[in-house]
Amino acid sequence: MSKKKSNYKTTHKKQPRANKKIGKAPGTVTYLGFREGQKSDVSIIEFDENSYQVYQTDVVEKILDFKNSPSTSWINVVGLSDEAYIENLGRTFELNPLTIEDAVNTSQRPKIDEYENYIFCVLKMIYLDANNELVSEHVAFVLMDKAVLVFQELKEDVFNGLRDRIHTKSGRIRSRGADYLLFTLLDAIIDNYFVVLENINSKIEQLEEEVYDNPTPYTARKIQDLKKEVLRVRRRIFPVKELINRLIESENPLVTKDTKLFLKDLMDHCLEINESLQIYREMSMSLLEMYMSNVSNKMNEVMKVLTIMASIFIPLTFIVGIYGMNFSFMPELEWKYGYFVVLGVMLTLFITMLILFKKKRWL
Amino acid sequence: MSKKKSNYKTTHKKQPRANKKIGKAPGTVTYLGFREGQKSDVSIIEFDENSYQVYQTDVVEKILDFKNSPSTSWINVVGLSDEAYIENLGRTFELNPLTIEDAVNTSQRPKIDEYENYIFCVLKMIYLDANNELVSEHVAFVLMDKAVLVFQELKEDVFNGLRDRIHTKSGRIRSRGADYLLFTLLDAIIDNYFVVLENINSKIEQLEEEVYDNPTPYTARKIQDLKKEVLRVRRRIFPVKELINRLIESENPLVTKDTKLFLKDLMDHCLEINESLQIYREMSMSLLEMYMSNVSNKMNEVMKVLTIMASIFIPLTFIVGIYGMNFSFMPELEWKYGYFVVLGVMLTLFITMLILFKKKRWL
Amino acid sequence: MSKKKSNYKTTHKKQPRANKKIGKAPGTVTYLGFREGQKSDVSIIEFDENSYQVYQTDVVEKILDFKNSPSTSWINVVGLSDEAYIENLGRTFELNPLTIEDAVNTSQRPKIDEYENYIFCVLKMIYLDANNELVSEHVAFVLMDKAVLVFQELKEDVFNGLRDRIHTKSGRIRSRGADYLLFTLLDAIIDNYFVVLENINSKIEQLEEEVYDNPTPYTARKIQDLKKEVLRVRRRIFPVKELINRLIESENPLVTKDTKLFLKDLMDHCLEINESLQIYREMSMSLLEMYMSNVSNKMNEVMKVLTIMASIFIPLTFIVGIYGMNFSFMPELEWKYGYFVVLGVMLTLFITMLILFKKKRWL
Amino acid sequence: MSKKKSNYKTTHKKQPRANKKIGKAPGTVTYLGFREGQKSDVSIIEFDENSYQVYQTDVVEKILDFKNSPSTSWINVVGLSDEAYIENLGRTFELNPLTIEDAVNTSQRPKIDEYENYIFCVLKMIYLDANNELVSEHVAFVLMDKAVLVFQELKEDVFNGLRDRIHTKSGRIRSRGADYLLFTLLDAIIDNYFVVLENINSKIEQLEEEVYDNPTPYTARKIQDLKKEVLRVRRRIFPVKELINRLIESENPLVTKDTKLFLKDLMDHCLEINESLQIYREMSMSLLEMYMSNVSNKMNEVMKVLTIMASIFIPLTFIVGIYGMNFSFMPELEWKYGYFVVLGVMLTLFITMLILFKKKRWL
Amino acid sequence: MSKKKSNYKTTHKKQPRANKKIGKAPGTVTYLGFREGQKSDVSIIEFDENSYQVYQTDVVEKILDFKNSPSTSWINVVGLSDEAYIENLGRTFELNPLTIEDAVNTSQRPKIDEYENYIFCVLKMIYLDANNELVSEHVAFVLMDKAVLVFQELKEDVFNGLRDRIHTKSGRIRSRGADYLLFTLLDAIIDNYFVVLENINSKIEQLEEEVYDNPTPYTARKIQDLKKEVLRVRRRIFPVKELINRLIESENPLVTKDTKLFLKDLMDHCLEINESLQIYREMSMSLLEMYMSNVSNKMNEVMKVLTIMASIFIPLTFIVGIYGMNFSFMPELEWKYGYFVVLGVMLTLFITMLILFKKKRWL
Repeated sequence: MSKKKSNYKTTHKKQPRANKKIGKAPGTVTYLGFREGQKSDVSIIEFDENSYQVYQTDVVEKILDFKNSPSTSWINVVGLSDEAYIENLGRTFELNPLTIEDAVNTSQRPKIDEYENYIFCVLKMIYLDANNELVSEHVAFVLMDKAVLVFQELKEDVFNGLRDRIHTKSGRIRSRGADYLLFTLLDAIIDNYFVVLENINSKIEQLEEEVYDNPTPYTARKIQDLKKEVLRVRRRIFPVKELINRLIESENPLVTKDTKLFLKDLMDHCLEINESLQIYREMSMSLLEMYMSNVSNKMNEVMKVLTIMASIFIPLTFIVGIYGMNFSFMPELEWKYGYFVVLGVMLTLFITMLILFKKKRWL
Repeated sequence: MSKKKSNYKTTHKKQPRANKKIGKAPGTVTYLGFREGQKSDVSIIEFDENSYQVYQTDVVEKILDFKNSPSTSWINVVGLSDEAYIENLGRTFELNPLTIEDAVNTSQRPKIDEYENYIFCVLKMIYLDANNELVSEHVAFVLMDKAVLVFQELKEDVFNGLRDRIHTKSGRIRSRGADYLLFTLLDAIIDNYFVVLENINSKIEQLEEEVYDNPTPYTARKIQDLKKEVLRVRRRIFPVKELINRLIESENPLVTKDTKLFLKDLMDHCLEINESLQIYREMSMSLLEMYMSNVSNKMNEVMKVLTIMASIFIPLTFIVGIYGMNFSFMPELEWKYGYFVVLGVMLTLFITMLILFKKKRWL
Repeated sequence: MSKKKSNYKTTHKKQPRANKKIGKAPGTVTYLGFREGQKSDVSIIEFDENSYQVYQTDVVEKILDFKNSPSTSWINVVGLSDEAYIENLGRTFELNPLTIEDAVNTSQRPKIDEYENYIFCVLKMIYLDANNELVSEHVAFVLMDKAVLVFQELKEDVFNGLRDRIHTKSGRIRSRGADYLLFTLLDAIIDNYFVVLENINSKIEQLEEEVYDNPTPYTARKIQDLKKEVLRVRRRIFPVKELINRLIESENPLVTKDTKLFLKDLMDHCLEINESLQIYREMSMSLLEMYMSNVSNKMNEVMKVLTIMASIFIPLTFIVGIYGMNFSFMPELEWKYGYFVVLGVMLTLFITMLILFKKKRWL
Repeated sequence: MSKKKSNYKTTHKKQPRANKKIGKAPGTVTYLGFREGQKSDVSIIEFDENSYQVYQTDVVEKILDFKNSPSTSWINVVGLSDEAYIENLGRTFELNPLTIEDAVNTSQRPKIDEYENYIFCVLKMIYLDANNELVSEHVAFVLMDKAVLVFQELKEDVFNGLRDRIHTKSGRIRSRGADYLLFTLLDAIIDNYFVVLENINSKIEQLEEEVYDNPTPYTARKIQDLKKEVLRVRRRIFPVKELINRLIESENPLVTKDTKLFLKDLMDHCLEINESLQIYREMSMSLLEMYMSNVSNKMNEVMKVLTIMASIFIPLTFIVGIYGMNFSFMPELEWKYGYFVVLGVMLTLFITMLILFKKKRWL
Repeated sequence: MSKKKSNYKTTHKKQPRANKKIGKAPGTVTYLGFREGQKSDVSIIEFDENSYQVYQTDVVEKILDFKNSPSTSWINVVGLSDEAYIENLGRTFELNPLTIEDAVNTSQRPKIDEYENYIFCVLKMIYLDANNELVSEHVAFVLMDKAVLVFQELKEDVFNGLRDRIHTKSGRIRSRGADYLLFTLLDAIIDNYFVVLENINSKIEQLEEEVYDNPTPYTARKIQDLKKEVLRVRRRIFPVKELINRLIESENPLVTKDTKLFLKDLMDHCLEINESLQIYREMSMSLLEMYMSNVSNKMNEVMKVLTIMASIFIPLTFIVGIYGMNFSFMPELEWKYGYFVVLGVMLTLFITMLILFKKKRWL
């Protein structure tokens, strides 16, 4: 679990692209993630309105059969570090070398590429893991005539609800083609973005309470971390809108008019998510302003205490100092009630000061 | 009443979509609001230039008759939590499943969808309730050839003026078709947005006074809450402009050229509202700056008092300290008027200091 | 005079639209200004290259004659609160009900509407009154084939120079048609916007001096008021650019190619005004920053005085305290020159401190 | 020299347009600059590949001859306050009255207007005068078939290099037409914009050093002045990009395809200048932030000194105060080494405090 | 090495263009860099699928042969200060004078120009030198039918990986034409931009730690320097996106459809880089806010210490002052346990104060 978390962070700390890719020929299939040495694991769900079957194989030729079968196939490739295997798979499916390169390039930003025989798109799956940490995973889709090829790094994904629906034949999924399958995969991913939003929103609310009730210097750091998280999530999610839009406007026969209606609905979700992120961004900026105003207010309070104490007691100390002088001739010192008169004067001064500060609303 | 208020707030606190929708098939009709277990309540106003009638029924087939009658019908569905009933109604009216889904999705952002036989649009009704709290309600319209189907969560709405006009035959409403009815419904909603603006404006003015006259740390919190309210209202109102624009530019015969003239006027109102919201946003940001500058000024004032007190009395205390020393040989102590000379010196110093501070404009 | 001023302010304080218009049918002619109960006052200037005549009438039919006469007419309607009269006038001139509604809607934002037989535009006349206060007045124009119909609330306007030119036959005005008349009316309004700019500019310069020379907490309030004024003026002036542009690009034969050349020149003025407003906005924001930096500087100065006083005299007071102690055995007290030695030590300390502060540039 | 400087400033202080132009007919030729009563001074350079001649005349008819001669003429008009002469000249050259108006309107923003027989453009020449002050001068060009008419206020300009090149036949200038001459004139002006950039850049660097090394309250004012200067220069230079672009995209045969290639290069320079100005704007804003952070740091330093002094000596003073009390029974006073014990205790306290502050890194 | 570094900085300090170019004819070949007096050094790599050869010559006619040979040639010109040689070379290759001018103009911003026979583009190579300093070098490409002409200032470049690939025949490079060679050159440059990003990112992280753990006034300066570096790098990199886009959309037959696919991939990298730079910009701005909030927090801490010390000891000092007065009649002084009672009272006060401050969380 902690591995996932560190992945989320380190993706940003090190831009592995810079080191691994320099000097290599364009189109070279280079895995850029952190899970080296994994064998790719391929599972296929083949279905049509009447039948439903699950296969597990890594023989590339057998996988190719699903591409050409009349029923719809969801070919799921888990584990991207075996570059040779992926390259072989891609070549067998007649994918452009650039497609294969981007499929395993885990730092690829969300995008869509249309080719003659297939549509390729990359985006980020973002979800909460068991530790309530945000996990961001690379996922790539290849939409073909009768199949969707999915590349992901880890077994965990957000598609279990979809697998159940295919299995139990609920919803439209079984009666429609590969393009509708792609739509439901995208829909599952985007539905999970709302979880990210909720998570950010609750962090903002917690920090808001903290800023109002008990701000510490550490609060500022937490606000800053939140701002960075919003920036990062926004970067991953923002381009998805364009991706969906390009699918809707595509003239490629792979995407049917019927599915486009559903994609338009998805587009709405994207717009809503982007708007929310924009609002969260402004709110997190407001948080720091709020924090700063609170720090200033606290300083004001501290200064008032100091000023009140000093303004009352410094003059009084001066008065007692006067009668501590050792002049041989100081008439007041000889008066019988001199001491009490001075005490009385000081009490009067003390009370006057209190009233004055009360008036200034400093007390 | 307090229920409404909490609704307004919780809509933002919890994104119910994230929890309720995950894993469900797209197009599943899922009510996302907070008023569960309500039966839908359907009332119909059927009118043409000469006749006017009000019906109340929940038999779906009877409702369908109004769609096909030659006079214009306003079919008003109140209560959206009975998902099965709404779905049945929608299917009877031959609405796309996505339309029905969005009609009950109370967290749907304002949008418009054109279908072959109808135009569907969703927006937010925002108005002040009896407690002067802002209430934001989901409302969805389906414009058909001879009828407008309205979906709303609560009986309360902003359409009473319109109902009166239909009843009393005032204005053009009775002599025009369903598209003009839709326009008047939108017009009623947008007219109420101006109330929201007024409400925000008066809050800004109150806070402005508070910032100038008696700012407390709580004032900053109120400013921040205002900023958030402006952000939220803006989010709900901003997309309406696009919605109206799409209606104006629609080539669908459902919207007549004549009604488009009126919609253009509505467009102007939307532009005006958006401009106002933009200005309120800048003004609420200015408020915090103003507040901060006031806090700084107050601190300055506090510091000045402290500095004046300390600068005057610390040196004087030092002087009396000198003559409190117990050296056996201190010639001044023996002088007859030594005490009075010292008092005089200190008075001179005191006055000099006052003049100096006066010159620096610290007093 | 004070009435005007309060009008300028209250237009923003109360959005009268929200209260007066709610529930009314769209297209209802509703006066939204503050000058109720005024009778409309119509004056007509009819001119062509050779003749020039001024009429005063309120008989609608007679006014209509000017529309159809071969010479150009400037029909000026002053006073908009007599809704029935205006509506009658509008209907006689075959104006769309929406046009009449907007003509008397004093809170209408600047806009232009093209109809088959006329072009309608609304904007704000802004000028300095006798008290040097900014006055913003609603004005609406209807450009017809042979006449321009002008609606304004008050007799005062910025068109006197133009009236003179028509009278004295100076410039091109007499030899050209209604579209050129509209251009000169717009030109007069926009020329007065430059006065608004000058007024804002001189306020900025005054505040700049105040911020540098003698900033008080009240200065911040004045800066804030200036920012709001710039926002408000910008809101009124900004849409005028679009209005002129739409006139230039209009394919309506009412606007001749020749007049468009002049409108392009006007467009340049609009761009210049908008640029200036943008710069004033940035400058007014800079003013507050400047003010804040000045407040901080003053605080620094105050703190330095306090620190210098305290740093010098607190240690000295400690020293004299030592020799004020009453221990029975304190050898220094018995020394003959003990007192003077201590005085010397303190003087040395005092001078050392001064030098140190001098070095730190605190003195 | 000082005259120029004041011109640069006053152009912004007074918008003379507002006063001089109000009430005048559009197209009235009104000089808006500060050099009244100057006679216009016309010099002509006529050249083709083989010949080169310079003339000086103010007879309008003779000037007109150059327009029609087969060789290229650069007609340079210096001094714009003789409105009648300029108007006559313009009419003779068949210029549109609006063109003549803008040619002498020294507050005209950069723009381009295309007419049937000529192209008119206005921009600002900005250069450093002998006192290293920025001077901004109005300059207007009329590109005709065989001549370029140049209007400028002062004899000083940035075209001397160009005059030399024509004279010495260096570069392409002699072998090309009027459009290339216009290009070289624009090129000379834009090359001088780089000097403005350098000047601003060096000011930023100076201020940066000042902010880091020795910030005074006056530094903030200088930063503010710089920000305003960047705003003003940007306003004058920014529209030039659009002007060049319009020349490139013009379909007017006056601009040849060959010259457009050169104009594209000029366009690049404009983009570069605008980018630099954008960066300077951000840098000048950063300067103020930097200044503020420095002021805060200084305050912190001051406060630390105060706190250290007070924290050390106030408790010590309290201790010596105790033994200055006059109670008849205070056993410590009678101890033989009481005094030295107390001194020791105080020394220990003093050292402890120093160590503590050292640990907190306040020393 | 230090030379490179200073180059990177001085390019910004002095805009040499302003001085060197003023008054020169447009199209004059003027070297603007800092490496004067270098002889140009030309090396050619000629390759096709089967053969591979490297040449070294400076005879312009021999170089021209490579342009016309059937195999692809990479003509690399190092050293741009020999203006005459470069001009001669350019003329021989029939390049437009403007192209030659821009090829040696080291302060040219990234751009692309299409001519009939070739495509010309300029951009910046940015990489880390041996001292880990960023170096920014001017590089210009001329894409011709069978050759790519490369102009660079220094021998060091980022193309060694590419040279190896050509040599070892790895990747597609050997089997494709000049346009693919240009793509791989651009790819090598853009891959190195990721190194710049990493470098900036690690600086941000270092500064973040410094701000949180041990901020000094010098930290603010480092943050400011970082902000300026981001601005500068962004300026150099941002226009590259447009350049690539123009190549993709070019209809010039020099760029084949096949290569455009690769260029689209490059475009994605550009977008990613620009997004990262945008995020770094926001992060560096956040850093200063964070720093300021830290400074404020520290001030608060300092003030608290002062206030606590003063609030506790000033009243106590006042009390001991009272009993240091020399009144002849002060009953408490005579009490046997007066001294201890006073000590007890003061201890109680001391403890009460501590508890109070504890409650306020100041301790």
